[in-house]
Amino acid sequence: METCDLLIRGALLGETGRKADIAIKEGRILKVGENLKVEAKEIIDAEGKIALPSFANMHTHVPMSLLRGIGADLPLMDWLQKVIWPLEGEFVSPEFVRAGAELGILEMIRSGTTLFMDMYFFEEVVGEVAESAGVRAGLGFGILDFPTKVAKTPEEYIKKARRFAEDLKGSELVFPVICPHAPYTCSPTTLRRAKELAEDLRLYLHIHVAETRGEVERIREEFGRTPIRHLEDIGFLSERVLCAHMVWLDEEDMEIVKERGVKVAHCPESNLKLGSGIAPVPEYLRRGIHVCLGTDGSASNDNLDMLEEMSTMAKLHKGSSMNAKAIDARTALKVATENGFSAVGIRAGKIKEGYEADLILVNPNTPHLQPLYDPVAQVVYSAKSSDIDTVVCRGRVLMYKGEVKTLDEERILWEARRWSERIRSFLERVSA
Amino acid sequence: METCDLLIRGALLGETGRKADIAIKEGRILKVGENLKVEAKEIIDAEGKIALPSFANMHTHVPMSLLRGIGADLPLMDWLQKVIWPLEGEFVSPEFVRAGAELGILEMIRSGTTLFMDMYFFEEVVGEVAESAGVRAGLGFGILDFPTKVAKTPEEYIKKARRFAEDLKGSELVFPVICPHAPYTCSPTTLRRAKELAEDLRLYLHIHVAETRGEVERIREEFGRTPIRHLEDIGFLSERVLCAHMVWLDEEDMEIVKERGVKVAHCPESNLKLGSGIAPVPEYLRRGIHVCLGTDGSASNDNLDMLEEMSTMAKLHKGSSMNAKAIDARTALKVATENGFSAVGIRAGKIKEGYEADLILVNPNTPHLQPLYDPVAQVVYSAKSSDIDTVVCRGRVLMYKGEVKTLDEERILWEARRWSERIRSFLERVSA
Repeated sequence: METCDLLIRGALLGETGRKADIAIKEGRILKVGENLKVEAKEIIDAEGKIALPSFANMHTHVPMSLLRGIGADLPLMDWLQKVIWPLEGEFVSPEFVRAGAELGILEMIRSGTTLFMDMYFFEEVVGEVAESAGVRAGLGFGILDFPTKVAKTPEEYIKKARRFAEDLKGSELVFPVICPHAPYTCSPTTLRRAKELAEDLRLYLHIHVAETRGEVERIREEFGRTPIRHLEDIGFLSERVLCAHMVWLDEEDMEIVKERGVKVAHCPESNLKLGSGIAPVPEYLRRGIHVCLGTDGSASNDNLDMLEEMSTMAKLHKGSSMNAKAIDARTALKVATENGFSAVGIRAGKIKEGYEADLILVNPNTPHLQPLYDPVAQVVYSAKSSDIDTVVCRGRVLMYKGEVKTLDEERILWEARRWSERIRSFLERVSA
Repeated sequence: METCDLLIRGALLGETGRKADIAIKEGRILKVGENLKVEAKEIIDAEGKIALPSFANMHTHVPMSLLRGIGADLPLMDWLQKVIWPLEGEFVSPEFVRAGAELGILEMIRSGTTLFMDMYFFEEVVGEVAESAGVRAGLGFGILDFPTKVAKTPEEYIKKARRFAEDLKGSELVFPVICPHAPYTCSPTTLRRAKELAEDLRLYLHIHVAETRGEVERIREEFGRTPIRHLEDIGFLSERVLCAHMVWLDEEDMEIVKERGVKVAHCPESNLKLGSGIAPVPEYLRRGIHVCLGTDGSASNDNLDMLEEMSTMAKLHKGSSMNAKAIDARTALKVATENGFSAVGIRAGKIKEGYEADLILVNPNTPHLQPLYDPVAQVVYSAKSSDIDTVVCRGRVLMYKGEVKTLDEERILWEARRWSERIRSFLERVSA
């Protein structure tokens, strides 16, 4: 008899609505089928649970979990300039990043995410936490034209980005990404250098683009074109570029994005909360643009919950386009799972032979999920992260029956509270 | 020393951000303050929990919980005519209504709701369930021009509505409401009779208005005016009318609504999911229109979760109006709580001396609510119903430490599954 590492018995497969066993070996799905005849080192009884692919959070700033909800009800530029940047100037350090990453990754495991794309400071620390928590992460620090704790000049940022990428190479979970912050914070020269570095090292690029109407106007004033045409003109765009937000694109921008195979990381809740607007996602999907989903940081969302983000995305676009079929439940699930993984070349997001074993089990035995007629639609429209029972990444069980196995939840919450006391007194001092 | 029935010790009051005790006597809040010197029959230790008013779900069809998510991804009229009405024709009975109401009220208690306004069939059964579960409910069956299981003619509906109202009188939790279904399903004569009945018995009216653009066009074709002007012209509108949805109002409609003191039950998630559109709620609030919040039924939402509804409302209107201040967290909370209760004359929705003791305790000790800087904003933007620990209605503890005291959860879920088997085989037969 064949042997495997982990056997999940009797799960209800979201995709087919039928019961099946899932055999996992060496991080991959070996077989999916009824009553599999395999031996296993570890068996999970999934009777009555729904099996779905886990989520890929394609745009976030995970250490900002320590700044959760600060500056609520402010628009993007006020929020950044009056609240977030002064706080970061005071507090950001490797210790801050470690505590924030632990808190954020704990929250992401609890809500079924096994891949996240992060842009912040001291990303090597985020990488250590992700590695030991057992989740996948594409990491890079923001490259800017102005000095921060990372570097003083664009040249220094690029040099450090090369060193960071070379140091991080070789992990099976964590990979380096080149992250020029945005077209309005990086000169064309900086953007070009970042692009060259990414090409040289065969890495993905991750950047904020067209988040607000103000940004589009600013780029248009400075360069006489939209942010997308600006990036196109300097040769920045390719299928290895992940653009977060992409709220304000015109027809020609969309054609370029489609043509170049650029990946869009849609962040609906952050765009709503900061008053940035509603990205025309049904139109992107209609054109065959590769759309995936992200939460953005917890300071503007105010959580890292991809299940909630997926639900909001599906409902939002039906409502704003006045078309109940604009994004159906299966499309929403694919955007939140498979489209994220495949955007960075990971074969996951399906519970299918040969795919990476990244999946979740959802407990539908709650008043808000019963009766259960359509597992996928009901998870998309009605489930909460508290219904997620088990999380598996690359074949490793990160959470089982609601208990996170790879992180010390009590210590992490204690540390978060300790940081919040210092942050709170700084905020009181500043506002006094 | 003064005595009270229930003393909640050391809760963090959402409104002030400070710790206080809450003393409750005869269903009302007797006192709120630090270290209250009172004796109590029952004490709840709320150390570390956030105390907030409970929610008022101002538009729902609670027995439809048994039809959860059926016909997902369809627009309103297809969903009603092709899926929901045939199903209701087959299944609706007092037994169906009892099982659906138990499931829905269980879900509402779990998510912190202590008042709901319901419109369905066999509402006397909903009333029995609400009464024994200990929640407040404003109930009425839908009055229509076409025959259903309730009645054959408009005259018969009105007669039965009078009898229903007279039979239900006298309860402290449950009250009758007159529910003409909508301007497109009731003739002017039926609407007038419903209005007269409500005036005669001093009851509230609850009606669907201006839910879709199609409805507005239809009324305009038939009567040459908008649904609101139609209702105004036949003398229907007053401060005792609760209009659900109200997505498509023009300037003049808004003036009438403000002038008449009509209450708006905004249902953002249902309006999004059915592709009906986005109600101009920030504009309603700016004009001083009384806006409260509802989930609509579980067949179009797909849950009865007011915490989620409140979060969606706040984010949606910031994003769609591109103004991060369009609805701030405190306004969102007020709309979801106090504005609902006061719309039907109940003095609740504030944790304050003299107010009805309807409140919840939220446990913020989770990765998605830490650090906790602003309890109200973080509950609005990031909490989940699974964080609700305790629910009190009229001074009675309905849920404590996540356990519902007044309903048998296991039996209710079992019954829901039993109904779903019958409904599923009907759906299979029909679609075959």
